[in-house]
Amino acid sequence: MARVTVWGEHRQERSDRPVAAIYPDGIHAAIAAGLRGAGHDVRTATLEEPEHGLSEAVLAATDVLTWWGHVAHNEVDDAVVDRVQARVLDGMGLIVLHSGHHSRIFRRLMGTTANLHWREAGERERLWVVDRSHPIAEGLGESFVLDHEEMYGEPFDVPPPDELVLISWFQGGEVFRSGCTWRRGRGRIFYFRPGHETHPTYFHPMVRRVIANAASWAAGPRGAALDLANPAPAEPLAEG
Amino acid sequence: MARVTVWGEHRQERSDRPVAAIYPDGIHAAIAAGLRGAGHDVRTATLEEPEHGLSEAVLAATDVLTWWGHVAHNEVDDAVVDRVQARVLDGMGLIVLHSGHHSRIFRRLMGTTANLHWREAGERERLWVVDRSHPIAEGLGESFVLDHEEMYGEPFDVPPPDELVLISWFQGGEVFRSGCTWRRGRGRIFYFRPGHETHPTYFHPMVRRVIANAASWAAGPRGAALDLANPAPAEPLAEG
Amino acid sequence: MARVTVWGEHRQERSDRPVAAIYPDGIHAAIAAGLRGAGHDVRTATLEEPEHGLSEAVLAATDVLTWWGHVAHNEVDDAVVDRVQARVLDGMGLIVLHSGHHSRIFRRLMGTTANLHWREAGERERLWVVDRSHPIAEGLGESFVLDHEEMYGEPFDVPPPDELVLISWFQGGEVFRSGCTWRRGRGRIFYFRPGHETHPTYFHPMVRRVIANAASWAAGPRGAALDLANPAPAEPLAEG
Amino acid sequence: MARVTVWGEHRQERSDRPVAAIYPDGIHAAIAAGLRGAGHDVRTATLEEPEHGLSEAVLAATDVLTWWGHVAHNEVDDAVVDRVQARVLDGMGLIVLHSGHHSRIFRRLMGTTANLHWREAGERERLWVVDRSHPIAEGLGESFVLDHEEMYGEPFDVPPPDELVLISWFQGGEVFRSGCTWRRGRGRIFYFRPGHETHPTYFHPMVRRVIANAASWAAGPRGAALDLANPAPAEPLAEG
Repeated sequence: MARVTVWGEHRQERSDRPVAAIYPDGIHAAIAAGLRGAGHDVRTATLEEPEHGLSEAVLAATDVLTWWGHVAHNEVDDAVVDRVQARVLDGMGLIVLHSGHHSRIFRRLMGTTANLHWREAGERERLWVVDRSHPIAEGLGESFVLDHEEMYGEPFDVPPPDELVLISWFQGGEVFRSGCTWRRGRGRIFYFRPGHETHPTYFHPMVRRVIANAASWAAGPRGAALDLANPAPAEPLAEG
Repeated sequence: MARVTVWGEHRQERSDRPVAAIYPDGIHAAIAAGLRGAGHDVRTATLEEPEHGLSEAVLAATDVLTWWGHVAHNEVDDAVVDRVQARVLDGMGLIVLHSGHHSRIFRRLMGTTANLHWREAGERERLWVVDRSHPIAEGLGESFVLDHEEMYGEPFDVPPPDELVLISWFQGGEVFRSGCTWRRGRGRIFYFRPGHETHPTYFHPMVRRVIANAASWAAGPRGAALDLANPAPAEPLAEG
Repeated sequence: MARVTVWGEHRQERSDRPVAAIYPDGIHAAIAAGLRGAGHDVRTATLEEPEHGLSEAVLAATDVLTWWGHVAHNEVDDAVVDRVQARVLDGMGLIVLHSGHHSRIFRRLMGTTANLHWREAGERERLWVVDRSHPIAEGLGESFVLDHEEMYGEPFDVPPPDELVLISWFQGGEVFRSGCTWRRGRGRIFYFRPGHETHPTYFHPMVRRVIANAASWAAGPRGAALDLANPAPAEPLAEG
Repeated sequence: MARVTVWGEHRQERSDRPVAAIYPDGIHAAIAAGLRGAGHDVRTATLEEPEHGLSEAVLAATDVLTWWGHVAHNEVDDAVVDRVQARVLDGMGLIVLHSGHHSRIFRRLMGTTANLHWREAGERERLWVVDRSHPIAEGLGESFVLDHEEMYGEPFDVPPPDELVLISWFQGGEVFRSGCTWRRGRGRIFYFRPGHETHPTYFHPMVRRVIANAASWAAGPRGAALDLANPAPAEPLAEG
């Protein structure tokens, strides 16, 4: 089981009545409940806490960080973005959710705009597993359906994922690479598309399953930390 | 411009009236016409020719081979499959089209079943470009539409593509990795999904554009042929 | 812990005195001992057993199969190669060791010749971790050294690995992609280079660590088995 | 032939006598000469020019930018880094050379530290082609040798390359992923390791060949520019 910190912007859940109706305790609380139900050891952190709840001590005790933000990406401090990036490169897992694609930390780690097409029409989304060998695909079957979601459409301006696990079909005619992994330094990153604030997506059992699987995957074993010392030659340099 | 050999099974076009009505000269003739229109130097070959039209001499003079087969995969000789595989590993490009996913040469090169889901309902297909950096994507815009096609759905049992260029959306709810590349030896392989024999798909300008782009891409420069001699040490082996 | 079947050709260990001196119980026994020491549940199987020890029942009870062969690749029955391939595509892990690169099962799954350069000079090999995020890299540090090994040199005629974990340096001037993963169907494959029969490589603690890590990685969770039924449309096909 | 802008820091060539002796007109001039010799259309730009010589107009007329910097990475303006990044994402090729691994533009596009081990001992480097299918490998044979170079050793803290073309062997015992490609947006990026300022590396015919091949590869055709408009549904959203 992983030690997961669930980060939430926690803004629209307080300011926007329809969102509050679905997520009265915040989106982060729903995500945290799903992860706890899968046996993970979970804490939460939000934008308005000091250091956004992401102190050095919290990150040091975090195996996997999940990130949901939407309207306040620009309010996240540089220092915290730097700190999270460093911690990912040193081995912390990172799960970026839905509108978190435009978060500063995700763009920083991707090196691209992370732009995409979108449409708020509450349409049907079908998510298809395209990598059956992947740990994140466990228990999902061939596909699952979300009856009402925001549409995200290609092109998604991210680096080609190291692994593509899920592709979404949308009722209006679009597709999207909805479950993608990237490796950065010692860290493993997963982007998972669903989760618009006006739909109860984070209560859906398959969505919860994907996030819990991803936390287990991202928290798994890895290699050594970076040693910055430069080496003396291990082999003789005399001319052969 | 590439020297392209267009291979066609040329069976249903002679036995099946609706197919003959669309492709009176064979599916290979339509594919060849598209490639010639893009400036490639094209010849054709079919199953019933000696050695299926794929002699050593023909393959030696071929930069890129395109493959369309459907009902007679098992009639392709072992010796020809061996020869095409060897030629791909030595640097010939290979473009596998539609039902060619179950051809012996494609399964041989993939190492998997190449199984997939399918449905003949003449439904709408939208093909989305997901790698805008790729030469095969040139001139396609963001997406294009085929009004009536057979559906191919995930899971598609192939190795994860080295590059994923196109994803299809189908009206009935499925998605498919429709434009995929793999590198094998010195050769470059492209799989392109559309092209059911009961639809005039190979006359569609965007389909022709994809195949012509893929031929240019697959015919491009590459590294050295395999040298099977084993080397003496270039550096001294005395203990350091 | 994984249920691992360690397959050994077990030929040179009986016919060749220097090999027998190092591996009196067979190379497979040394590999099995290393895996047991890491806590895996291990059985062995060898070429001369009925069905090479790889019956349907054995494979069904195997999470990960390791493969070491050298001089008798051509004695492995077609039916067993077919069976192992099918089981890998259905989710069994496969770890191919050293000269197993030319085994029929590995070439079948790769679709290439798996050729490489080699030299038997007992030279020094240094293995460097190039993917610190990978579970197989756990506990290896930055690099480790084998004082005497056969050289394998690039080009290695395999598909580009999905993940490249280790690169070898050889004293005589060559490099080699020594730790490579590929995904095929539901199965995960790892190739690990070291292990010439005239050196006690499979007693080396780092070599054992790599193989044990790879077994854990290959045995991990995965997605659903292939469902071959073709679907009815889940969405309406009427014209929009 | 590509329109190439060769960017050089042009600092040590003026301040450091041994460097000036090798590159009296600047490292950029030697790189430019090599590219011109291969038929490319080349201009140069350096740090001390206004906007570092990389105005909007220059970048708009550039198919491929090459980047060599070392001691003055921090003097490159934010605005120019932003501009180059945007132009790469919009389709310009980028070739980052040697110590350019620590340039702000490369770290920005990678999302990692780009750290590595290094040693200035003038040792021998052998570069091995590991992807014989790649256009950048044309004309290189199996390997080539640089008699005296700075050592760069793994781990190299970059995202796993989309394509790995070259691996270096160093006399002192290290290996390095020396020829790597990444795709970002519509742009293609190549990192090429050799080129320490105290060695005449950019006069070496194989080094020039790699850079010229990479320019051709990076300048090739690509897909459409990003369209930021959000789409209306192309398919009906009424319930099925």
